[in-house]
Amino acid sequence: MAHYKIAVIGGDGTGPEVVAEGIKVIKAVADLEGFTFETQELDWGGDRYLKTGELIPEGGVELLKQFDATYLGAVGHPDVAPGILEKGLLLTLRFELDQYINLRPVKLYPGVETPLADKKPEDIDFVVVRENTEDLYAGVGGNFKKGTPDEVATQTSVNTRKGVDRCLRYAFELCRKRNDKKRLTLVAKTNVLTYAHDLWDRAYKEMATEYPDIEADYNHVDACCMWMVKNPEYYDTIVTTNMFGDIITDLAAMIQGGMGVAAGGNIRPGGASMFEPMGGSAPKYTGQGVINPIAAIAAASMMLDFLGEEASAKRVEQAITKVTGTKMQSMAAGRMGHSTSQIGDLVCEAL
Amino acid sequence: MAHYKIAVIGGDGTGPEVVAEGIKVIKAVADLEGFTFETQELDWGGDRYLKTGELIPEGGVELLKQFDATYLGAVGHPDVAPGILEKGLLLTLRFELDQYINLRPVKLYPGVETPLADKKPEDIDFVVVRENTEDLYAGVGGNFKKGTPDEVATQTSVNTRKGVDRCLRYAFELCRKRNDKKRLTLVAKTNVLTYAHDLWDRAYKEMATEYPDIEADYNHVDACCMWMVKNPEYYDTIVTTNMFGDIITDLAAMIQGGMGVAAGGNIRPGGASMFEPMGGSAPKYTGQGVINPIAAIAAASMMLDFLGEEASAKRVEQAITKVTGTKMQSMAAGRMGHSTSQIGDLVCEAL
Ligand SMILES: CC(C)[C@H](C(=O)O)[C@@H](O)C(=O)O
Ligand SMILES: CC(C)[C@H](C(=O)O)[C@@H](O)C(=O)O
Repeated sequence: MAHYKIAVIGGDGTGPEVVAEGIKVIKAVADLEGFTFETQELDWGGDRYLKTGELIPEGGVELLKQFDATYLGAVGHPDVAPGILEKGLLLTLRFELDQYINLRPVKLYPGVETPLADKKPEDIDFVVVRENTEDLYAGVGGNFKKGTPDEVATQTSVNTRKGVDRCLRYAFELCRKRNDKKRLTLVAKTNVLTYAHDLWDRAYKEMATEYPDIEADYNHVDACCMWMVKNPEYYDTIVTTNMFGDIITDLAAMIQGGMGVAAGGNIRPGGASMFEPMGGSAPKYTGQGVINPIAAIAAASMMLDFLGEEASAKRVEQAITKVTGTKMQSMAAGRMGHSTSQIGDLVCEAL
Repeated sequence: MAHYKIAVIGGDGTGPEVVAEGIKVIKAVADLEGFTFETQELDWGGDRYLKTGELIPEGGVELLKQFDATYLGAVGHPDVAPGILEKGLLLTLRFELDQYINLRPVKLYPGVETPLADKKPEDIDFVVVRENTEDLYAGVGGNFKKGTPDEVATQTSVNTRKGVDRCLRYAFELCRKRNDKKRLTLVAKTNVLTYAHDLWDRAYKEMATEYPDIEADYNHVDACCMWMVKNPEYYDTIVTTNMFGDIITDLAAMIQGGMGVAAGGNIRPGGASMFEPMGGSAPKYTGQGVINPIAAIAAASMMLDFLGEEASAKRVEQAITKVTGTKMQSMAAGRMGHSTSQIGDLVCEAL
């Protein structure tokens, strides 16, 4: 019987509450499908940082490598300056663990409200493969003559052939097995970023010759944002850079119903990977049971899929669909019709 | 009586058709409000490029400086590789004429369909001030070991204190006079672009002290995209960088009803400025009279405002509102209910 070790970083605010529901669901599906797992809770986050001054404890990155996966709630604490935890914890883990794929399935579950007029669940069902370790996130830049009227501030997007290729490879492979649509859309800005996206464009076109079964489509990032709200049904698999991915996945999260239902994975294929609901820590709602755990449960499903438990992953997805489609009044925040833990229970029952 | 000299670059495809309607409307309002103008047509665009190999003729940039404003249709030709005309004409003019503001009013006209559920004209009415000469558009970067497996491609965002300040100044001033909301939102990514957007952040906060009547608000670019589709009524004036502005103004164009109604200005305050509908040249529709000229007419209104003819500008805006609200079946492309020139006539009648 397969056995998995999962590191759990509940994090701040309502993070621990939503991961608790995810773990509840994993337990239930483990019993049904026949695998076992153990969790270890790590107290990384705002409270620990305020007490110890440490974001990731000494040896923390190495520790995570000993687990089969990491399950993250949310970071962000009212007493910690904005950005500190996000950069010092979230971005640092992505980089140190070389989680080079940020995977964001975008799916409108039945019963969930989208801000788009006339769009149905079958219209919003695509996935974004975001490069997760390079580009403007490289931390390269500077401030020349800082603080003077002559200041010049730069920030450099760094793209390596290796980094681009491994991201594209993942996307082509995912697109091939996803469904019959087989449309991969590269989202970039080749007409303006003539150096950085020339590399993306060349690498993309070269790799596309290995995948004659896949339509190697291209959108400028600005056009993609328009299309996503007008014709989301066009998309199947999107592959994009770190910065543009950050932007379009948030837009995508909103059209699928918002942070309460959007999940993501920071993936190093075959290595230490981390799954999380996209929502923030919502500190003022801590302990009130009003946060939608569907995003965390969907992240748990992604984690199961990553671990090789595809049947369980699918079962959880189907249970989510059943619950949102029939049991919840509306998935909009504060109008879930049930508490955080009741929704976890409903998903378990629906498995 | 005021007299203006306007350079007209109809450009490619349907560009000339829509600017013709704009000029028709300017003529009509000039008679009513009492100013005069002359136009000079410049044949810059794809056809000329294919014949002569020239994008902007020798002395062209200096020529435009002799006009009070430039009115542009669209560039983009089926026989010219994508990007050539956009970069060689549009971006070159922005840079050479130092049109450092890209102004994009975002307004849902009555009767125009938005892809957002339940949003009414009063919910979508804001303006984006996009920096137009720096950032990732600077053309700075390179390809190290190009074409090898070790290639590193970079693209650098360049931001100067002078460039940032003049853009912020424009935005604060515009926000002050726009309406009573007085909310200016800086859209950036300070938590990741820690050098470039540290400059934006500092310059913004410093200038904000000069405008105590204005709420100096801030959004990360990813959050802004979410908010724009969920709660566009939140926004009043947005100020942002060139690249992020490119992205969010296209998203904004879609929520206001698409390219057929979105207009923009490339502005050098007090200097050579250029106004354009946001849509492309749509070559396959050339001569069919099916392109919505409202965007070009709205661009004409922006140009009149820039020229100091505020009353005329407002009159054109109100005429547009009357026509979209009562005379057109729907503003979605191909379902306008009227031909391109009929709509121009309707706006003239409604003045
Ligand atoms: C918190 C922030 C640094 C992060 C990012 O920009 O990647 C977030 O927006 C995300 O998309 O996971
Ligand atoms: C055509 C292109 C170079 C241009 C840009 O990126 O600025 C366009 O998208 C715009 O927004 O005017």
